[in-house]
Amino acid sequence: MANDAFKALAHPLRRDIVERLSGGTATVGEVTRDFGVSKPTISRHLRLLEEAGVVSRVIDGRTHRLALRADTLAETSDWIDIQRARWERLFDVVGEYLEERKE
Amino acid sequence: MANDAFKALAHPLRRDIVERLSGGTATVGEVTRDFGVSKPTISRHLRLLEEAGVVSRVIDGRTHRLALRADTLAETSDWIDIQRARWERLFDVVGEYLEERKE
Repeated sequence: MANDAFKALAHPLRRDIVERLSGGTATVGEVTRDFGVSKPTISRHLRLLEEAGVVSRVIDGRTHRLALRADTLAETSDWIDIQRARWERLFDVVGEYLEERKE
Repeated sequence: MANDAFKALAHPLRRDIVERLSGGTATVGEVTRDFGVSKPTISRHLRLLEEAGVVSRVIDGRTHRLALRADTLAETSDWIDIQRARWERLFDVVGEYLEERKE
């Protein structure tokens, strides 16, 4: 759910993981090594990212491969863009009104 | 800072405040009334939104008017879009490679 995506992205380590994965999938072991944090710490952060649908995990035997979920990322940035577009449209309307009054 | 914007947007009430403000500026009193929460609660959430640069406050005498900050919203959605674009480009490259091999 996109609601939880903001919470998932609220922590700097979790954003670093997203940046890492945007360059390609990685195993849990690779991510743990890359960031030099303990296994329980990385597991906790990965769980939050997975629960929010930001990251998916494909289990292939003993290998857990992590991937980004473009759909959730799109939903999340769309929500922000909708708010910004509504807000900016207000100023366009005010601007047009002032232009018309000048004429 | 866009880093804190994700934290600011991580709470449902704060996202509701952003949605309210995207339709136009509002006074602190109006926002407090709209959401039926106590003044200390709304103050705490507004402080987080202001510290993250998502909301700005213009003090005009006794009136505190709240507005969205389009620049911070843009930075925040841009960060997500950059990650998504990098990720999606990977699959384009893989797709092109497979197409070439087929030929």
